[in-house]
Amino acid sequence: MLDHPMRTAIQRALFEDLGPGDVTTDATVSPEAEGEASLIAKEDLVLAGLPVFHQVFLELDADIGFEAFFEEGRPVPAGDRVCLLTGRLSTILKGERTALNFIQRMSGIATLTRRYVDRISATGGRILDTRKTAPGLRLFDKYAVRMGGGVNHRFGLSDGVLIKDNHIAAAGSIGKAVALARRESPHTLKVETEVEDLAGVQEALDAGADIILLDNMPVAQIRAAVKLVDGRAMLEASGGVNLDTVKAIAETGVYAVSVGALTHSARAMDLSLEIISA
Amino acid sequence: MLDHPMRTAIQRALFEDLGPGDVTTDATVSPEAEGEASLIAKEDLVLAGLPVFHQVFLELDADIGFEAFFEEGRPVPAGDRVCLLTGRLSTILKGERTALNFIQRMSGIATLTRRYVDRISATGGRILDTRKTAPGLRLFDKYAVRMGGGVNHRFGLSDGVLIKDNHIAAAGSIGKAVALARRESPHTLKVETEVEDLAGVQEALDAGADIILLDNMPVAQIRAAVKLVDGRAMLEASGGVNLDTVKAIAETGVYAVSVGALTHSARAMDLSLEIISA
Amino acid sequence: MLDHPMRTAIQRALFEDLGPGDVTTDATVSPEAEGEASLIAKEDLVLAGLPVFHQVFLELDADIGFEAFFEEGRPVPAGDRVCLLTGRLSTILKGERTALNFIQRMSGIATLTRRYVDRISATGGRILDTRKTAPGLRLFDKYAVRMGGGVNHRFGLSDGVLIKDNHIAAAGSIGKAVALARRESPHTLKVETEVEDLAGVQEALDAGADIILLDNMPVAQIRAAVKLVDGRAMLEASGGVNLDTVKAIAETGVYAVSVGALTHSARAMDLSLEIISA
Amino acid sequence: MLDHPMRTAIQRALFEDLGPGDVTTDATVSPEAEGEASLIAKEDLVLAGLPVFHQVFLELDADIGFEAFFEEGRPVPAGDRVCLLTGRLSTILKGERTALNFIQRMSGIATLTRRYVDRISATGGRILDTRKTAPGLRLFDKYAVRMGGGVNHRFGLSDGVLIKDNHIAAAGSIGKAVALARRESPHTLKVETEVEDLAGVQEALDAGADIILLDNMPVAQIRAAVKLVDGRAMLEASGGVNLDTVKAIAETGVYAVSVGALTHSARAMDLSLEIISA
Amino acid sequence: MLDHPMRTAIQRALFEDLGPGDVTTDATVSPEAEGEASLIAKEDLVLAGLPVFHQVFLELDADIGFEAFFEEGRPVPAGDRVCLLTGRLSTILKGERTALNFIQRMSGIATLTRRYVDRISATGGRILDTRKTAPGLRLFDKYAVRMGGGVNHRFGLSDGVLIKDNHIAAAGSIGKAVALARRESPHTLKVETEVEDLAGVQEALDAGADIILLDNMPVAQIRAAVKLVDGRAMLEASGGVNLDTVKAIAETGVYAVSVGALTHSARAMDLSLEIISA
Amino acid sequence: MLDHPMRTAIQRALFEDLGPGDVTTDATVSPEAEGEASLIAKEDLVLAGLPVFHQVFLELDADIGFEAFFEEGRPVPAGDRVCLLTGRLSTILKGERTALNFIQRMSGIATLTRRYVDRISATGGRILDTRKTAPGLRLFDKYAVRMGGGVNHRFGLSDGVLIKDNHIAAAGSIGKAVALARRESPHTLKVETEVEDLAGVQEALDAGADIILLDNMPVAQIRAAVKLVDGRAMLEASGGVNLDTVKAIAETGVYAVSVGALTHSARAMDLSLEIISA
Repeated sequence: MLDHPMRTAIQRALFEDLGPGDVTTDATVSPEAEGEASLIAKEDLVLAGLPVFHQVFLELDADIGFEAFFEEGRPVPAGDRVCLLTGRLSTILKGERTALNFIQRMSGIATLTRRYVDRISATGGRILDTRKTAPGLRLFDKYAVRMGGGVNHRFGLSDGVLIKDNHIAAAGSIGKAVALARRESPHTLKVETEVEDLAGVQEALDAGADIILLDNMPVAQIRAAVKLVDGRAMLEASGGVNLDTVKAIAETGVYAVSVGALTHSARAMDLSLEIISA
Repeated sequence: MLDHPMRTAIQRALFEDLGPGDVTTDATVSPEAEGEASLIAKEDLVLAGLPVFHQVFLELDADIGFEAFFEEGRPVPAGDRVCLLTGRLSTILKGERTALNFIQRMSGIATLTRRYVDRISATGGRILDTRKTAPGLRLFDKYAVRMGGGVNHRFGLSDGVLIKDNHIAAAGSIGKAVALARRESPHTLKVETEVEDLAGVQEALDAGADIILLDNMPVAQIRAAVKLVDGRAMLEASGGVNLDTVKAIAETGVYAVSVGALTHSARAMDLSLEIISA
Repeated sequence: MLDHPMRTAIQRALFEDLGPGDVTTDATVSPEAEGEASLIAKEDLVLAGLPVFHQVFLELDADIGFEAFFEEGRPVPAGDRVCLLTGRLSTILKGERTALNFIQRMSGIATLTRRYVDRISATGGRILDTRKTAPGLRLFDKYAVRMGGGVNHRFGLSDGVLIKDNHIAAAGSIGKAVALARRESPHTLKVETEVEDLAGVQEALDAGADIILLDNMPVAQIRAAVKLVDGRAMLEASGGVNLDTVKAIAETGVYAVSVGALTHSARAMDLSLEIISA
Repeated sequence: MLDHPMRTAIQRALFEDLGPGDVTTDATVSPEAEGEASLIAKEDLVLAGLPVFHQVFLELDADIGFEAFFEEGRPVPAGDRVCLLTGRLSTILKGERTALNFIQRMSGIATLTRRYVDRISATGGRILDTRKTAPGLRLFDKYAVRMGGGVNHRFGLSDGVLIKDNHIAAAGSIGKAVALARRESPHTLKVETEVEDLAGVQEALDAGADIILLDNMPVAQIRAAVKLVDGRAMLEASGGVNLDTVKAIAETGVYAVSVGALTHSARAMDLSLEIISA
Repeated sequence: MLDHPMRTAIQRALFEDLGPGDVTTDATVSPEAEGEASLIAKEDLVLAGLPVFHQVFLELDADIGFEAFFEEGRPVPAGDRVCLLTGRLSTILKGERTALNFIQRMSGIATLTRRYVDRISATGGRILDTRKTAPGLRLFDKYAVRMGGGVNHRFGLSDGVLIKDNHIAAAGSIGKAVALARRESPHTLKVETEVEDLAGVQEALDAGADIILLDNMPVAQIRAAVKLVDGRAMLEASGGVNLDTVKAIAETGVYAVSVGALTHSARAMDLSLEIISA
Repeated sequence: MLDHPMRTAIQRALFEDLGPGDVTTDATVSPEAEGEASLIAKEDLVLAGLPVFHQVFLELDADIGFEAFFEEGRPVPAGDRVCLLTGRLSTILKGERTALNFIQRMSGIATLTRRYVDRISATGGRILDTRKTAPGLRLFDKYAVRMGGGVNHRFGLSDGVLIKDNHIAAAGSIGKAVALARRESPHTLKVETEVEDLAGVQEALDAGADIILLDNMPVAQIRAAVKLVDGRAMLEASGGVNLDTVKAIAETGVYAVSVGALTHSARAMDLSLEIISA
């Protein structure tokens, strides 16, 4: 069972599409007609969003049948059937687009994440997401990252301290910002700070930062930072990360590499619903 | 002033990020500190979403100042300043990510749309969007398409008749489906039907379809369809459309080409907020 | 199963009435008491709203039993039993007024619509509703019109183009307004324009309007308009339509006659819930 | 300033109509165009709903100008101008139908109420409404009754005790039901019970009912009830009340006559918005 | 089944706590793990809120099992088991705190109420609550008062007339305020007025108040008021009421004593959830 | 300006009280009457909730005047005036109870917190709150704790890892639970675990817990734990904490003492609104 906030977002999306009704289906399909529909992967992908896909139809019709052939987070080869829906044909047609919009986006994020994760599998590093998600869809986007093997960074501004350049400027220095965060922010949260060069790393270390985010630093510098820190803080690298550069960055020994593109620029996967009237 | 449904979506996104509060800013930035922030395009883009960007901050603080240097829908060269915010530094920091998430996505959609539009500018055709939008963000995604020079297709299932293969299967034939839609759907809507080959085009024409959507047909066949129809119906082409193929498709003389990727796979534009404490 | 937006409206109405609780029932009826209730038509009517009536009680109590003796859209003679509810007496008493308010209004609309439809049954015309619905109840009002045999015009401002006198004034002329709408509005929608005289009909025709709404024109003029148009556009008539005039208007051969009174001035039907404690 | 619940209902109604946008106005009217609009009474009416009418436009546009020429609850002669709106023409056109739907319904209720009130003005009685309101619009409907000179009965099931036949059946007798209500319901509420004959009146009196509702009793019997009660309880009459019968009923000396038709069957008043582009 | 407004408040509370997810349980407990949990009273208490406690878990998981060992409103001795939950361990852990927050608060209110009720059991008086409830929790707080044997005063400003000193000042005198309320407020409500001395009692009586609230009057004066009124109005006493003074106040013969502390200052009861992994 | 979630909670509380209207004020106070109201502390207290108090009235009436004489978090002596409201008397009367309910509860929490904070001021320790807040009011309750000088622990289940006995049982041991949390929970959060004895402390330390919560341990044992840990983890103490015991616990040298009573059992402060008609 999906949580209430996810269900609310699903209802919102469904009725954004449905409006006062589906004029085409109401005109051409008998309310009694039954059918079945197979969700087919039209390209290789990592599956994410199947419970959401299912819930879209349940919102319209409690009697819809559902059988899954793959588990969330698993690779699905092009051409394979992901799941089967059975029940009122009109329900299937009315929910189709909304359900596909969710699962295509979510599987797109999972698939892209998996590509990054696979690139660095030999390194012991991990792939982190960011808060660069589609507005209103953060729970879905971050869930999809997990299904792709990625690790979630903060869900929002309240469940992690992350000092950025503007906080540093406001506080006066990295050291002052870290000290303020240590003292004023919840003691259950680690203190993470962004830095731009090795001097920043040293200052963050001296101030006792738990996590240091190396922003837009060249690989050689990242490597030097790893050496300098020597296990006294966790290191993240971000900025300019893509599928070509991620492995070299991860090989420096940083704890994690964060990739905004996972959620702001993943391409939707091609999944299609093949429907047969009963 | 943005409409209520857009404002509601903006509030939802903002508090999805903010949760019980911004622990970092609260710890490191004085509530009295003032600042100004410039929104900078880090790459060439077509601007969409500036009123949304502005509204995010207004939801937090009615006193935030705002000056725009570009109009919606206009190209912005890399490096140029898009707008200036002034006011409480803490407000700017709290709204930053949400505001950027909107404008980066929306400008991404507008920029990609403009590329398609530019490709076919010599043809007299137009670029259409689809219902393949991010769940809950349809108003924003379709607005961005317009800013990119594209044209909106249906907003949902109630403001247009579009007969797809499953409706045809349920009704028995293209002809029967079009006839049912003519009779049963609102007379204020045109009847559009999807077809897959020239026989389908002929059947749709005979049945009196107003718009015929040529789905996944090769260019040569599209050209033949245009000739066959000879102005008796509007023609749309869809399926397999990308920046390489769109021009040839448009040159066939179809009324419009619809592109799902505009809204389901546009890359976010790189825009950055440069903040200076006052 | 009713759609989410209808269910939300039903919950809103139910708790508008119930507030913090039903002080009378709580004081006088045991929570264990069971009962049954027959919904009786106290006058001849066309039934609309039975699924809504049922849902009101389900919102309070999933165990309520329900049996229907008439189908939606069918005539019910005075004195006949429409349906039977069984279950907790307190549930029946708490939901009674809200459930009746829905079905009395909806059956009122359906019954009035049927009277108009019957008047013109010999003519081949049809009865259209308008957007003159009770605020917040449009889905219910327009559903009731359909149950009465009427046809829905637009659900709102986005699913149909209807150019009225003020749009014409703003655009400069009927011809200019129709041309603008053709070019700027969604191509999936027909263009309808209001006109007030035969010159307007001609101008609308010349501009390529798909539908022409003859507003407040005398029957003779309507007849002349039908002749002038000669099938090149659909014609609607509106204004000053009542049960005495509708037949003559429909006999002119217009496609449809629109009647605001269906939804803004229908009298509630007299339906009563006769409850027996078990 | 209208209360939050009324504003929420206004927003709901406005966006029920507006949906994703007004395709006609967006196509034909420049966003910069200014205009003014006069609300004209097309028939004699009692005004109710002007603040609601105004608020509809304010929800869309804070800059809309407004001047009222009549006060709420006052008669407006056919042909007179009720108020003037000035501002963006597109705002006026987008809000027009929703604003009219409110004020036409509310003025319809007020006008009908005033007719009943006028009928019995010589009697010292008063006209009461019921809970037979349009679902979701109770605050608006009951406000309109007050503007027409009527008096509100309960707003819902929690702000008054009203024992009906089914409560009596469940409790065993009028006397037992009144006694239970006295003991179990909030002591701040009076106890009102419905009765159907003089024996019922006597039983209610004996049980100490504060208010006795004479349901569907002939005028002669009502007169006898007034005599029997002799000021020891308030008397209301209901059932079969119309403009022809109300005076005779009120002349019996009952405290009040309740009329369901005020809110469930009032005809909408004809009000029209005459718009002039600036 | 709980009413919709209570369920909405429960969902709100649950997701206020749960946010984007329970990071601890997700990390340490397998989603398949089953368990059972006993709710144990750690001190003597009067039970209130068990259906709310249960519903919190149902919102997360329809399969949760539940068995109650005590009824609402009954005393539970320290150490006894109140109910048993069975099902997914993760569900139990995620709902635990929210469910406890409700039942601890509600049982605290019921237990305190019962102590007041017991103090005055020999007197024939009753204990009333006030509107001094936790914002947003009025339905829950007032329900708990009933479970403790108390009686609810008004639920809000619309279901009872209560004239306070400021209304008196605005109207000019007690007599004028009572007369205005008689004439202008709903006739289904009794008129209650606050007074501060015996002269006020006399004035309220003369004006025909139904209920007189003796505010902050010494016991001797309350006794005199009871004598003066002699059954012609109901009397309530309030102000300075505590467990030491309540009996003497009730013994004066007033109808009821109202106690704000029941809902604004009740201590939470100590209830604990003992969970065993299956 | 208060955040949107707080404003939403304020609106909910206000209209929970107001319902369809304030029947007393509407009957006895002219809508034109102006007044002023002084908020008076009737006992010594620490102020919290003044912006919330103010906002309640602003929701009803944008024209209400407001002047504060004390700042949030400051002590107010009995008898002093906290703030002054000016404007429509009816607005002041309608918002009074809701505004007082907020500020009395919030100042109660702040005042109790300050008493705990003062008790341990010599120790270097700090007072923490818990998640034992009133359902739906967590933001308000935790804000009030801060105003009293306390420090917030987690806002919910997602912004901190806190391993409790049931998580330990599910995982198998303290060590296993901490290791799982380390590996599976967000790396931006510290890992906190509850322990019950010194062996538990050692096991938590060995497993690398960042924070150790000593639950219900005697002071001597807490002192031993502090010695054992010797700065290698943060220590919190909880259980059985009251104003008599808190100092001894804090003197052991733990980092913080958490007190559930701050939010679940604080007595409301006595604040009163003295209103003068203008």
